[in-house]
Amino acid sequence: MSASAQLPLFVSFVAGPSGLWRIDRVDCYIGEAMPSADRLDVLESSDWRPAISEGSKWILRGVTSNLRYTTRVEAGELNRRQQELGRPEATRAALIPIRKNAAWWALAQDERRIIFEERSRHTTIGLEYLPAVARRLHHSRELAEPFDFLTWFEYAPEHSDVFEELVRRLRQSEEWRYVDREVDIRLSRP
Amino acid sequence: MSASAQLPLFVSFVAGPSGLWRIDRVDCYIGEAMPSADRLDVLESSDWRPAISEGSKWILRGVTSNLRYTTRVEAGELNRRQQELGRPEATRAALIPIRKNAAWWALAQDERRIIFEERSRHTTIGLEYLPAVARRLHHSRELAEPFDFLTWFEYAPEHSDVFEELVRRLRQSEEWRYVDREVDIRLSRP
Repeated sequence: MSASAQLPLFVSFVAGPSGLWRIDRVDCYIGEAMPSADRLDVLESSDWRPAISEGSKWILRGVTSNLRYTTRVEAGELNRRQQELGRPEATRAALIPIRKNAAWWALAQDERRIIFEERSRHTTIGLEYLPAVARRLHHSRELAEPFDFLTWFEYAPEHSDVFEELVRRLRQSEEWRYVDREVDIRLSRP
Repeated sequence: MSASAQLPLFVSFVAGPSGLWRIDRVDCYIGEAMPSADRLDVLESSDWRPAISEGSKWILRGVTSNLRYTTRVEAGELNRRQQELGRPEATRAALIPIRKNAAWWALAQDERRIIFEERSRHTTIGLEYLPAVARRLHHSRELAEPFDFLTWFEYAPEHSDVFEELVRRLRQSEEWRYVDREVDIRLSRP
């Protein structure tokens, strides 16, 4: 069964003094910035309960869900090529929270699909970076969170340049004109 | 601005001894039943906080969101014809929680759209019952709730037969073969 058919996974990204991942930098690209912290923990749960926040600087929450714009053909390609999170060699990570503006959310499904894929090639571009970059999308808009989406990426140090290219290409797309807040958090682990 | 562009609204349906709506009956159509109660309250919030549940028999929670299958043309028709909730004459209501099975959630976006509209005519059928029946869809799947969707309908007593026809037609559609739990809660107020 593909990941999208599984039950939603509730994920809390907890920044504070402890956690598996070291936060190397927190850059604000669009809109309001976020404070940095020493470490980040990624807590997964099949249920929706508040993460323990003692001593944390901030917590971002999201939930995995079904794919919203992906066709069967695209989903087949993604499933064939994408890797799981947690590969031993993938010691670099990025957490990129974004929020889209009211104009985006006022668009109908067909209009969003045209911008997302036919014009911005979001999935097509992403496929070029598989299997090097593993990725998981979390939805936050319907959880009353400050961002709409939290995307988590993992890759090996030797693919750092390739990852920068992926992020740069997506930011140049028409879809990104609808992004009104974006923070880019880079992390590493031993 | 259309409803879908607005921020999500968090809604708790609280069944218990008090509330604006009287629960007239609770029928289980597919899967596990739910207990009845005397009254139902519909609590709305722009934030996500647990509803006060003292004395309640059950609480179902959902959140409004953007339309997931609707084209610009369909959304335009919906916006022109649909009525707001809370019309004084709409003293009958239905809360219909449904859950869809893993086969549905394993489908890609284009496959779900074909079943939802091209084959089941979900939006097209719904449009025939506007403006008589007002409707609001709440998403629950990503809130770790027992159902995926909670649909709330309001109509005047003289449109009760028309509403039964709407529900019957949707239940006969191909889309409904993917429903693995459905409860139908009918309500009235003075």
